[in-house]
Amino acid sequence: MENKPISKAVVKRLPRYYRYLGELMQEGVERISSNELSERMQVTASQIRQDLNNFGGFGQQGYGYNVSYLHGEIGKILGLDRQHNLIVIGAGNLGQAIANYANFERSGFFVKGMFDINPRLIGMTIRGIEVYSIEDLEEYIQKNQIEIAALTLPKLKAEAMAERLVQYGIKAIWNFAHTDLSVSKKVVVENVHLSESLMRLSYRMDHPVKKKN
Amino acid sequence: MENKPISKAVVKRLPRYYRYLGELMQEGVERISSNELSERMQVTASQIRQDLNNFGGFGQQGYGYNVSYLHGEIGKILGLDRQHNLIVIGAGNLGQAIANYANFERSGFFVKGMFDINPRLIGMTIRGIEVYSIEDLEEYIQKNQIEIAALTLPKLKAEAMAERLVQYGIKAIWNFAHTDLSVSKKVVVENVHLSESLMRLSYRMDHPVKKKN
Repeated sequence: MENKPISKAVVKRLPRYYRYLGELMQEGVERISSNELSERMQVTASQIRQDLNNFGGFGQQGYGYNVSYLHGEIGKILGLDRQHNLIVIGAGNLGQAIANYANFERSGFFVKGMFDINPRLIGMTIRGIEVYSIEDLEEYIQKNQIEIAALTLPKLKAEAMAERLVQYGIKAIWNFAHTDLSVSKKVVVENVHLSESLMRLSYRMDHPVKKKN
Repeated sequence: MENKPISKAVVKRLPRYYRYLGELMQEGVERISSNELSERMQVTASQIRQDLNNFGGFGQQGYGYNVSYLHGEIGKILGLDRQHNLIVIGAGNLGQAIANYANFERSGFFVKGMFDINPRLIGMTIRGIEVYSIEDLEEYIQKNQIEIAALTLPKLKAEAMAERLVQYGIKAIWNFAHTDLSVSKKVVVENVHLSESLMRLSYRMDHPVKKKN
């Protein structure tokens, strides 16, 4: 595979290709044309060809894509071919929901532990995943090769915790707090701002778009 | 205010402006220049000027933006100046987390009820929000002016439930199931695909970007 950089817009779409290709594999489909994939994904065939050209080597015109090969290559690009260890900071409903979601494991993301300050939650387990005291955070991160922390604390506590996490060696923060963390640029911060998603939904209710297809 | 259409990219950024302007209001800031806002938001001042020009009428060069006016105008564009009634389908951890998040109410989104098939959950309340039987769904939607349904069911059950919700008159689905719903184009579907967010995080860990600022 070539090593040319892939545009941000394409990267944003890759997980969706990965999902559809995974579903095709489950259905036993070995090859698929850009036109068939276009119909399934409700994306133009030319967009698909353009996007997937980034990966090269997927057979010739009229032959279609090799589903399993393409799935594997996209998985590698996304870093899903290796295991990522996660912890969850905050063992409330949202933290528990993340720990409970077994499907992350199929993509190589393993929630190893949860952390909270609430003594009523410490010691509890969710799907075998234990809630530890926040006091044990530093040692846990270092002993368990934890790369990613899902941060489900309230906005006002998130920033200070993010700084601690970075100090303890966390490489990436999956941030559910409704604030932009200002941590070192070396640390990846991926935001899930639910309020903003809800606002976009509200905007779209008031401004219907005429779809082309 | 003019009624020219606002680009999709700008709309995507509006909730973030809305959040920062709200924080400035809380701090008692009445006016802010694009340069100051730029520094706070880590976006270029020219991007800010370009984005906010869509709304017009915010004073002249050197005078800055009227924070409260701009906040109000963006709020109106996003439909946050009126109340939206929500229900949550699925009263598991994720559904409970949504019901528990009081901050949505500050933007006009009110979770009125939750629905589940699990008899152990029915009758429970979260922050005063009751879990009802899914059998009461149709009547509830129609009697309570429910516009939005947050869908937190597993992938395999989501599609059928989405069709029911549309049939019962729901205008928008906030979809947390890891699948693309194929409902009528008249219904807004806003996806929150957590797995895909995690995959983008993973990609970014392997492909660091050199930031400009």
